Amino acid sequence: MIKEMLENVRNTHPLIHNITNYVTVNDCANILLACGASPIMADDAGEAEEITGICGGLNINIGTLNQRTIPAMLAAGRRSNELGHPVVLDLVGAGASVLRTKTANELLNQIRFTVIRGNISEIKALVLGAGTTKGVDADMADSVTKENLLQAAEFARGFSQKTGAVVAVTGAIDIVADEAKAYCIFNGHPMMSRITGTGCQLSSLVAAYVTANPNKSLEATVAALCAMGVCGEKAYNRLTREDGNATYRNYIIDAVYRLDGEELERCARYEQVLG
Amino acid sequence: MIKEMLENVRNTHPLIHNITNYVTVNDCANILLACGASPIMADDAGEAEEITGICGGLNINIGTLNQRTIPAMLAAGRRSNELGHPVVLDLVGAGASVLRTKTANELLNQIRFTVIRGNISEIKALVLGAGTTKGVDADMADSVTKENLLQAAEFARGFSQKTGAVVAVTGAIDIVADEAKAYCIFNGHPMMSRITGTGCQLSSLVAAYVTANPNKSLEATVAALCAMGVCGEKAYNRLTREDGNATYRNYIIDAVYRLDGEELERCARYEQVLG
Amino acid sequence: MIKEMLENVRNTHPLIHNITNYVTVNDCANILLACGASPIMADDAGEAEEITGICGGLNINIGTLNQRTIPAMLAAGRRSNELGHPVVLDLVGAGASVLRTKTANELLNQIRFTVIRGNISEIKALVLGAGTTKGVDADMADSVTKENLLQAAEFARGFSQKTGAVVAVTGAIDIVADEAKAYCIFNGHPMMSRITGTGCQLSSLVAAYVTANPNKSLEATVAALCAMGVCGEKAYNRLTREDGNATYRNYIIDAVYRLDGEELERCARYEQVLG
Repeated sequence: MIKEMLENVRNTHPLIHNITNYVTVNDCANILLACGASPIMADDAGEAEEITGICGGLNINIGTLNQRTIPAMLAAGRRSNELGHPVVLDLVGAGASVLRTKTANELLNQIRFTVIRGNISEIKALVLGAGTTKGVDADMADSVTKENLLQAAEFARGFSQKTGAVVAVTGAIDIVADEAKAYCIFNGHPMMSRITGTGCQLSSLVAAYVTANPNKSLEATVAALCAMGVCGEKAYNRLTREDGNATYRNYIIDAVYRLDGEELERCARYEQVLG
Repeated sequence: MIKEMLENVRNTHPLIHNITNYVTVNDCANILLACGASPIMADDAGEAEEITGICGGLNINIGTLNQRTIPAMLAAGRRSNELGHPVVLDLVGAGASVLRTKTANELLNQIRFTVIRGNISEIKALVLGAGTTKGVDADMADSVTKENLLQAAEFARGFSQKTGAVVAVTGAIDIVADEAKAYCIFNGHPMMSRITGTGCQLSSLVAAYVTANPNKSLEATVAALCAMGVCGEKAYNRLTREDGNATYRNYIIDAVYRLDGEELERCARYEQVLG
Repeated sequence: MIKEMLENVRNTHPLIHNITNYVTVNDCANILLACGASPIMADDAGEAEEITGICGGLNINIGTLNQRTIPAMLAAGRRSNELGHPVVLDLVGAGASVLRTKTANELLNQIRFTVIRGNISEIKALVLGAGTTKGVDADMADSVTKENLLQAAEFARGFSQKTGAVVAVTGAIDIVADEAKAYCIFNGHPMMSRITGTGCQLSSLVAAYVTANPNKSLEATVAALCAMGVCGEKAYNRLTREDGNATYRNYIIDAVYRLDGEELERCARYEQVLG
């Protein structure tokens, strides 16, 4: 199933509207081009709805959010919902400030998301509320391991049931859940966390995959996460003893550029854990 | 003629003020340093005029324009005109939203540009008006080919006559026209379109070339486009089977860093088609 | 002494809040990850204080400052002072516009900085006042050479006495001074000035080093400057005849990723010149 998801991106060249942070925006644009999609970045409320209208999908990322861009996120999201476009939310830093948590909640209240991506801490910040450090799930560890895999999958599925979105919890092991099922993805390399923006890039990639694969958001998200992980592995294998995270960053995007469906199918390591 | 244009950049180190989008701004700065110029980025209306005053040329790029930066573009442009500095306009996304088209038109009304760069669709959006999909030129294809080359050159020359600026229509084949003459440039590689910001980088490069070659804006623009295209070819030839658009991006800037006048003269492929 | 400074960064993983320009922000984030620290970028006044509160140190960089980010700089700086966190100021472009010089002075008046970094011109702009081109030090050359080394070191020490901050004057030869002592650092390569943002990256690195080495700000700053210089030398030695400033940029960050304490100690070239 994974193979076709990638090929649909390459064949349909979805145009993705990104309202994203200025730290990793260039890498987000280049990874979209690498996978066969096209990026447009536009974050002013004066054009956000119109730009969304000419695109196939929307990716909202709350890193470096500000008073000027928040209204653009809301306007573009609502317009995408009207048009039936897929919308991805990247929760960068939710829980780190009231502004981020509040904005994330406002986005969740006003917009129907197709996919929500974050690490376990970011998603917990939303589920449990800002400032809440106790609660039923509060004792769950801040990383997904083989030991707490099922618990984390149930947590993700629960958040999917609450939001109606596919939920992607990324980390050493990734989890992707909808309201019924959950998958684990084992691809990737620890060094990916030493590059800024691999998460942001992944959300852009997810937006391309779900846009090119309508009505298959769960499978498309699994495919995008496998693709990123496989590319992280391939890129790591190219590194010499002198290379570090800057070259690694480039090689991951290069690997996305070169990845084809056959290789993705062959190298993807995932399994269904719930549903 | 091309050779000297490059050498004048290397010998005079023009300082270029860029008001540009946050997606590709780092690459714009690095390509300016690569060619021998120096960049300053400053987009707040509170300093835009003053920064322009200490520079030799100005590059305005409307990608990710916003309510805060538009007044800075207008102020810096007017100040550059007063000082007799060359001003380049990059039309990123003109036609994609009313805000971009309106801002581009406002810039054209208030500022005298030395060079205007865009792809054929962006320039058509301005010539034909936002929302206008019919008209004398509306049947022109959205890419320049060997078949419609003369028509496209006439179109560019017409826009030059209207604006007084050298017009650079970039694509698989580039066209550079002033009010009398037009050139075609055949350098470049299709993979350049798979990198974000090669157009933005080119506009920065053009700003450096026209600043270092006063009263030779047409020739300087032709030289800058040839330089970018030659570097796109050289960089492509370095790529291995594992490299993709991220490494290609770096190699193009590297090639600009290494390019000298002799090589540019030898590898440039252009011809005069009008005038 | 240098060795431990680096190792303390690798062992404590300081989290650094950066309010920095959008030109080089990605490189600042990646160099922080490369050295073993973690970056957070947040520049909206609505969250600046809170983000600073969860970090160990703060790095304020006035490149591409604007009306929206200046209040965030002031708020985050004051909060860091309350919390006793180290705060680094990067003077990018001080002297180039009234807005930058005025903002730099306002920051210096309201915030107690741990380290101030700039080139000699930027620091002179603050010491001598905007628009002042005469004065006791005005005849000092705009670059530090072997001939004016002592004069420059005294100038830096004087600025440290005035501000209470460690002062890092960077250039072909770097100077680091506190109120009593001054060091010169001879590491680095001239080609580093052909990359945008090596100065910005250095300030991020300094923030990581001073945060990981409390009460040793002078030594930690010397260590960070040596580290950057050593990496500039190592990265230069990897370049082929086809590589330029883009590849060089990546290799410097790669070298920071690979650098260990032993190598830093062995390759650092610095000496005490005052105190």
